[in-house]
Amino acid sequence: MQRKNLTIGVFGFGCVGQGLYDVLSRTQGLKVHIKKIGIKDATKTRNLPAHYFTTNRDEILFDPEIDVVVELINDEHAAFEIVSTALRNGKAVVSASKKMIANNLNTLYALQQQYQVPLLYEGACCASIPIIRNLEEYYDNDLLNSVEGIFNGSTNYILTKIFNENKSFIQALSEAQELGFAETDPTMDIEGFDPKFKLCILLLHAFGLFIQPEHIFNFGINRINDFDINYAKEKHSSIKLLAKCRKVDNAVYAYVLPHFVNGNTQLTNIHNEYNGVIVESAFADKQFFVGKGAGSTPTGSAVLSDISALSYDYRYEYRKTSQLLAKQAQNDLKFADTLALDNNLHLKVYVRCKNQAIVPLTDFIEIIEKYESTEQQYIIGIINLATIIASEWVKNEDINLIVL
Amino acid sequence: MQRKNLTIGVFGFGCVGQGLYDVLSRTQGLKVHIKKIGIKDATKTRNLPAHYFTTNRDEILFDPEIDVVVELINDEHAAFEIVSTALRNGKAVVSASKKMIANNLNTLYALQQQYQVPLLYEGACCASIPIIRNLEEYYDNDLLNSVEGIFNGSTNYILTKIFNENKSFIQALSEAQELGFAETDPTMDIEGFDPKFKLCILLLHAFGLFIQPEHIFNFGINRINDFDINYAKEKHSSIKLLAKCRKVDNAVYAYVLPHFVNGNTQLTNIHNEYNGVIVESAFADKQFFVGKGAGSTPTGSAVLSDISALSYDYRYEYRKTSQLLAKQAQNDLKFADTLALDNNLHLKVYVRCKNQAIVPLTDFIEIIEKYESTEQQYIIGIINLATIIASEWVKNEDINLIVL
Repeated sequence: MQRKNLTIGVFGFGCVGQGLYDVLSRTQGLKVHIKKIGIKDATKTRNLPAHYFTTNRDEILFDPEIDVVVELINDEHAAFEIVSTALRNGKAVVSASKKMIANNLNTLYALQQQYQVPLLYEGACCASIPIIRNLEEYYDNDLLNSVEGIFNGSTNYILTKIFNENKSFIQALSEAQELGFAETDPTMDIEGFDPKFKLCILLLHAFGLFIQPEHIFNFGINRINDFDINYAKEKHSSIKLLAKCRKVDNAVYAYVLPHFVNGNTQLTNIHNEYNGVIVESAFADKQFFVGKGAGSTPTGSAVLSDISALSYDYRYEYRKTSQLLAKQAQNDLKFADTLALDNNLHLKVYVRCKNQAIVPLTDFIEIIEKYESTEQQYIIGIINLATIIASEWVKNEDINLIVL
Repeated sequence: MQRKNLTIGVFGFGCVGQGLYDVLSRTQGLKVHIKKIGIKDATKTRNLPAHYFTTNRDEILFDPEIDVVVELINDEHAAFEIVSTALRNGKAVVSASKKMIANNLNTLYALQQQYQVPLLYEGACCASIPIIRNLEEYYDNDLLNSVEGIFNGSTNYILTKIFNENKSFIQALSEAQELGFAETDPTMDIEGFDPKFKLCILLLHAFGLFIQPEHIFNFGINRINDFDINYAKEKHSSIKLLAKCRKVDNAVYAYVLPHFVNGNTQLTNIHNEYNGVIVESAFADKQFFVGKGAGSTPTGSAVLSDISALSYDYRYEYRKTSQLLAKQAQNDLKFADTLALDNNLHLKVYVRCKNQAIVPLTDFIEIIEKYESTEQQYIIGIINLATIIASEWVKNEDINLIVL
């Protein structure tokens, strides 16, 4: 198959955009020509001739010469406008906007079907790890059991600094921000929203399910205090923020929660800004993918691979989704007897609180340990994920929750 | 894209073949029908009806109903006959015979081009790790620097038992054989031939190069003795058998050698029958893939994925090879100014011997350490890989060689 020459328009010229420009000028195999770069602020000094830049989106979106639109901006709503307009205009699209994609998977899937153009977004999931491509291509039969891992580089960086270098949460966070691994507003990362967006995207490619992010429970690392850290260390453990999804019969369980790890998972050894993904299937057993999960070049690498794939007409086939939709149509009963998200899952958790009175013991299926001191208290027990989600106490800032 | 229904003929009904049959009957998405299974011994009792089996190859190879031939036998020459005849008959082929494939890459590539049929062989490289697919699809631009790793599950199992459980080499080997991770004749594994075959296959998909296995240096773990093990332990290290290839300008360095590792590489943490592959590229930095590298189901999983890929007409594009061939044709100078294998590489090595007189010190570019006792002696120094290959002493059974 001959590679097509591609003419591309890029939105955004931050770190990823600039790195992409550099690398495209160095690659030989790929015949890609950047025609225009859409920017917001025309007054900034840039290291490329002025004719490359435009502040008028339509100059890219409606240019018939441009085959591929690469969307690398931060604004979710503008990103959706750009991506959906480009698809409607018959242009192939590469995007790395995880939040935008996770929130609009249904629409973006429908647009791809309707206009028969591909949208690729490997850069939106665990940066440099080719996880979407592997789920699409390599695990496309229906024997996948679970996908789980560390999907967020900045929180993993923070946790590494806390556990390996004895830094405080605040210190570690500010270092991550200085290095560009964490945003100025780190809420999306430290409260576990960012890995949840990625989990939503992977749920589609792993199991064929469209799940809106608000239907998945996320709990971050922002409430971790010295007591929790000491508890982990006493148990020769550290804490990792893990995103997980697992299929059991027709139920799919999915959540983002901090976990105590101590060598019981290969994810224990994933440090700093690295991400790690474990894919479990009936036949291949456990596969483990590791790569940098934050920073401009790892994301740029994924974007580059997506552009490269477009040069030979690659597209996501969403085979699991087609199978699931076909099955639902056959059953004539939407979601009956087919795969669906389920929160009815028993978890063994550590709940740390100032006062156990806040947490009704009746919420637990089983209490395994209780600890009380004047300073802090904790309960270890088995609890239903659905109970946690429905509870009031989980919203209490004085409470922390970590899976054992 | 609609999946095609496939009718397949399988050669070999050992562990992998049986596992494949089981899993195909359990998958829903894949419409694959096994029509015939070619076997050598018709008298063995098998758990499938007799009409499935044939001892006549041609019943499969010349059956117009059979679209895909799956070759899972141990005999290299028979495997080549089967695979090449199937390709000539216009059948797609899946094979897991690494030695046969490595020895015949040139011919198998040419047959695919000539008859326009795909041959897939993910199961031949690191069993369950989808490394060929990722090199083909995801790292298909020319910024790849290196591919290295633990490519052999049985030697890694042996080394793990030696270093983590203080077993002797002989004990560990016999355990690996009992568990089916090592062959009755373990030469191919312990002398480093098996990982070399895989390295040859990866050299084609990573850099586009056809390299015959005999042109690549391999040195195994069969000469490791207690002195070496103690040396490693004193240095808080263990030993791993690593296969490596690296591109520097137009030179590609490739070899299989045991290495002391001590956390200086992520491969340190790959234990037992697991394989690990690190792919380094300019943009994505380091990617790390881990999965089971020995056993029937990991290989079966790769074979299944290949069959699945054939159901939507996937084929290896060998893009790097096409680029390289085009460049060579353009230059009108075969291999001039294009990529080629090069052994002119400085390595820091530990050479252990009974008597240093066997090893000419002038072979070293630099001597860093010398140790002598009545029992054993060793030299640590910088040496050219080409010098090692050309030397007589490396063939001496009393000498061991480990990279530092």
